[in-house]
Amino acid sequence: MAAIKIKLEKKELEIKKGASGLDILKDNPHDGAIAMKLDGKLVDLTTTLDKSAAIEFVTSKDDEGKEVIKHSAAHIMAQAIKKLYPEAEPTIGPAIDTGFYYDFDNLKIQQEDLPKIEKEMKKIIHDKLPFTRKVVPLKEALEMFKNKYKKEIIKELTDKDVSTYKQGDFVDLCRGPHVPHTGYVKAIKLTKLAGAYWRGDSNNVMLTRVYGVAFASKDELNEYVKLLEEAEKRDHKKIGKQMDLFSFHEEAAGVPFFHPKGSIIYNELLNFIRDEYFKRDYGEVVTPTILKNTMWKQSGHWDHYREDMYFTKIDKQDYGLKPMNCPAAILIYKNSTKSYRQLPLRYADCGFIHRNELSGVLNGLFRVRRFIQDDCHHFVTPDQMGEEIKELIDFVKYVYKDVFDFEFHVELSTKPDKAMGDDKLWEQAEGALGLAMKEVKLPFTINPGDGAFYGPKLDFHIKDALGRSWQCGTIQVDFQMPERFDLNYEGPDGTKHRPVIIHRTIIGSVERFMGVLLEHTAGRLPLWLSPVQVRIMPIADRHLDYAKGVLEELKKQGVRVDMDDRTETIGKKVRDAQLHKVPIMLTLGDKELEAKTLAARTLDGKLKFGIKTADFVNAVKQNIEEKKVSVSF
Amino acid sequence: MAAIKIKLEKKELEIKKGASGLDILKDNPHDGAIAMKLDGKLVDLTTTLDKSAAIEFVTSKDDEGKEVIKHSAAHIMAQAIKKLYPEAEPTIGPAIDTGFYYDFDNLKIQQEDLPKIEKEMKKIIHDKLPFTRKVVPLKEALEMFKNKYKKEIIKELTDKDVSTYKQGDFVDLCRGPHVPHTGYVKAIKLTKLAGAYWRGDSNNVMLTRVYGVAFASKDELNEYVKLLEEAEKRDHKKIGKQMDLFSFHEEAAGVPFFHPKGSIIYNELLNFIRDEYFKRDYGEVVTPTILKNTMWKQSGHWDHYREDMYFTKIDKQDYGLKPMNCPAAILIYKNSTKSYRQLPLRYADCGFIHRNELSGVLNGLFRVRRFIQDDCHHFVTPDQMGEEIKELIDFVKYVYKDVFDFEFHVELSTKPDKAMGDDKLWEQAEGALGLAMKEVKLPFTINPGDGAFYGPKLDFHIKDALGRSWQCGTIQVDFQMPERFDLNYEGPDGTKHRPVIIHRTIIGSVERFMGVLLEHTAGRLPLWLSPVQVRIMPIADRHLDYAKGVLEELKKQGVRVDMDDRTETIGKKVRDAQLHKVPIMLTLGDKELEAKTLAARTLDGKLKFGIKTADFVNAVKQNIEEKKVSVSF
Repeated sequence: MAAIKIKLEKKELEIKKGASGLDILKDNPHDGAIAMKLDGKLVDLTTTLDKSAAIEFVTSKDDEGKEVIKHSAAHIMAQAIKKLYPEAEPTIGPAIDTGFYYDFDNLKIQQEDLPKIEKEMKKIIHDKLPFTRKVVPLKEALEMFKNKYKKEIIKELTDKDVSTYKQGDFVDLCRGPHVPHTGYVKAIKLTKLAGAYWRGDSNNVMLTRVYGVAFASKDELNEYVKLLEEAEKRDHKKIGKQMDLFSFHEEAAGVPFFHPKGSIIYNELLNFIRDEYFKRDYGEVVTPTILKNTMWKQSGHWDHYREDMYFTKIDKQDYGLKPMNCPAAILIYKNSTKSYRQLPLRYADCGFIHRNELSGVLNGLFRVRRFIQDDCHHFVTPDQMGEEIKELIDFVKYVYKDVFDFEFHVELSTKPDKAMGDDKLWEQAEGALGLAMKEVKLPFTINPGDGAFYGPKLDFHIKDALGRSWQCGTIQVDFQMPERFDLNYEGPDGTKHRPVIIHRTIIGSVERFMGVLLEHTAGRLPLWLSPVQVRIMPIADRHLDYAKGVLEELKKQGVRVDMDDRTETIGKKVRDAQLHKVPIMLTLGDKELEAKTLAARTLDGKLKFGIKTADFVNAVKQNIEEKKVSVSF
Repeated sequence: MAAIKIKLEKKELEIKKGASGLDILKDNPHDGAIAMKLDGKLVDLTTTLDKSAAIEFVTSKDDEGKEVIKHSAAHIMAQAIKKLYPEAEPTIGPAIDTGFYYDFDNLKIQQEDLPKIEKEMKKIIHDKLPFTRKVVPLKEALEMFKNKYKKEIIKELTDKDVSTYKQGDFVDLCRGPHVPHTGYVKAIKLTKLAGAYWRGDSNNVMLTRVYGVAFASKDELNEYVKLLEEAEKRDHKKIGKQMDLFSFHEEAAGVPFFHPKGSIIYNELLNFIRDEYFKRDYGEVVTPTILKNTMWKQSGHWDHYREDMYFTKIDKQDYGLKPMNCPAAILIYKNSTKSYRQLPLRYADCGFIHRNELSGVLNGLFRVRRFIQDDCHHFVTPDQMGEEIKELIDFVKYVYKDVFDFEFHVELSTKPDKAMGDDKLWEQAEGALGLAMKEVKLPFTINPGDGAFYGPKLDFHIKDALGRSWQCGTIQVDFQMPERFDLNYEGPDGTKHRPVIIHRTIIGSVERFMGVLLEHTAGRLPLWLSPVQVRIMPIADRHLDYAKGVLEELKKQGVRVDMDDRTETIGKKVRDAQLHKVPIMLTLGDKELEAKTLAARTLDGKLKFGIKTADFVNAVKQNIEEKKVSVSF
């Protein structure tokens, strides 16, 4: 048999033509290998090599390897479900960030049925059934699959062949790759059930979606379960209830009703961002909630975003509730002639925007139907673009790192399929974003096809205390809207020029950011964001007058303070304050009354006695002003 | 002829039966009398007296007298128009606050035609045609009036007779009273044309409305014209453009687009009211913009307010955009059990509300389709109601008088025709409002039938620099919604009780209040509200560095400051700053640079030299903090 040359990392191997990745592994062991890259393309380890090539092994530690495991687990689950519920019809089952899911028609099960399915999956895993790939002509595939959903998918394919994967008696239409056999999936867990429309379209039939997670080791699963428990404890919906921050009501599903304490956090976040606007020479604009459809057509939202919008009628004309603030900022820009001397012009908008999220994906403050974004539209000359983006990245860093102490990473998202404008402008805009990132010396990854419909973007993802990643900020460069709305400025040469728009948010949806902060801190917000900053606890009735005086003084100084003057033990009062995450408790008894001092206790148990009120006020005000992450005296 | 006794003010007269008010005036002259009250009822001076009674003369200085003049002028205008345009069909023509109008069908005229009509009216006035009243049976009236609008009105009457008034050849259906003859109307002016639907219903035909003013003397008209010119100069739409505060766009008719400078004023007004909330123990809530129609049905808005609302669909269900915040506050109240210890509970809401105003009545910031009200819902026990209302009146006084230096008056509006709930609760609520007003010793008038559909209210009207009155604040007592939503609190006795809701706003629509302030001050806002508080003007380039240092220092201290560093004369820079109503100008030249001082000039022309920067900062910050109405050093 002929030999071929294989480049494996730094080595050059000579192997028999027709050998597979698994064969190569025998002589060249690679810990945890579960798939490989053949000239850069991810394929099965069982793929046979018939010409010289470069290969790289992919392990379960790699992101791509994790995805292969999750995807193989989805097939295993489908096999198990078909065994237990033969009438169920599999539709599609991808790997997702958090694990995998598979959607079935004709599957009527409850949460209680999941362990039974898990048990069946474990049997399949124990049997180490090989995944075998077979490429078949479309016509043959149509005969192979009786299931109407699979047939619908096959009919839409344009290649002449399609790949299928089989393990045991289960065959699926699948691009692959997969692990060599089911035994590679060492640990699985089914997490939840949900309803999902076929192809996400509410006009279609509602399917049953089963979610799960899968790992290459038991340890990873255990770690995941622990994280889940911790996340469960930190669930912002739970904390929101405990701290009396907000509630949801079926009268307006998907929109939080912020209670007084929640509104404080919400408004403080907005105030913070507005203070930064003042420092950084931004102007705020206040714009309508409802605007005419003719404008949404001009902006491109009608073509690209209509399904996510709500509509109404005024004077028999069609109007849409704004899902974004850009066109309103543009109307203000156009309201008078602009000169290059006025640029950059920055119009920040803290208006409510509405987006028609499906009821199935609504999730506390994380996914809502109405929210405020700390967004801003920067109108700049092409020359100013680079500098403005760099300043913006600096602003983002300041907010994430200096104020909230979050780690973050950056992704550059490029032109999506559903985009407007010509390729040259897209390249120019993508180039500007990439260049700015290089100049500020921040690493970033590329996220192909995930840009906004009007331009590419930098996305900023923060990492919370549980290691979870949240996309918050975004900087988007837009050459399209200035064209569509015929925007101009008068240049130094006295003629008209086209400005560039930079769309951007830093904290993103204020609702969502508040949810992230609540989970990140487990409700122990920094002092400046705490709804109640100080709680006063007189020990006995005879300390009440003194306590009231302290309360008045603190309030006069702008501190959010309340008093627990119930006839309860101090122990009980402290526990209550801890439950409500009050950062500072002042216990006032005989000693304090006599010396006119305060005894303070922080939420993390630090104690300090004999503080003078004035010193306390100064320390608290300084902590608030400097937006410190923790409290100390 | 028999004699009857007439009580005239403090006198007792004996007159012939059948004598008229005019007859009595011969022996008992009363300056400016144009109508009279017969046992309290306003009637014509020509009314004959056939039994003993008390009469009072009404003059053109009295509000009721002014109304008679305006109403008579409406008839005179109708007569003039019928003469000039015989095909025009008069419909209705009442007196209104600002003058009078008359709506005509089949009248096609332009603004340019008004002088011609005025001229014809003056002829009629010169002819001193008597107004003669005639009461006729409905059947006869139907024959008298060929006009279909008059016929429609007559058909809806339930009395057996109807009164008509005739002057010259013009007869109108009219309750009266009128002046004795057309010569009493000494001065008239037609002001504008507008379209108006018959009976205000957009399904009906569009009529032509002609507006005018009328007075008992030329002086009053001249004064009115002067006021009009002054108001024209102070038009907030004009000032808004000059100061670059806001614009309106047909993409969202009736909703202002606030530019950066306008947004500052808007946000400062909201910040001011929020600071007061903090001091006065209010909680703010943030609630959805769109809520289900089922809820609007429960709240009564569907029945009583539907026509003023916008609607949309979400998940195929019917939703309405909130025209008021009350039901959302109620849902938060109901979210958990409330104890009497927690009351009063005050939920302020600064959310945007939408109301479907007809496009014809939209008027700058005065009448808009979306606005924020500084509204709040107070949940109180019935016992707390009186005290809470008194505190609220105090809050209103503080805002109007102490902060904005407005005079104001109060009206108590009672049960309207279109109301819900039983009479007993209405009486109780009306009583509580009246009692509170008496206890705080503020005078008030009664405005019958003008309450909200859920309860009576106190309306607060401020008086601006031109003497015009603006309804802003309102305090409404509501027993209905607590019933409809089954609201409870646990009393000291451990059982459930029904709270009372007080709905209230102080500045009212923030948009409208901003418009009033701009006209009241002619754009010369107090320092704390000024978009640019200080403008720095270096005299020559060599002063630029020093000027920049001052600018940075002021900005660091939170002062809104900008710089005019164009190469223009100081005179030109000062004029520009005055046009933009910048309250403080700092001119910096050699003297200032050398001594490191500032030279300040206020908008009203006060000058001060040699001020140290620190002293200036302190003075400015103090003025802002104390929200002073004017600037001084």
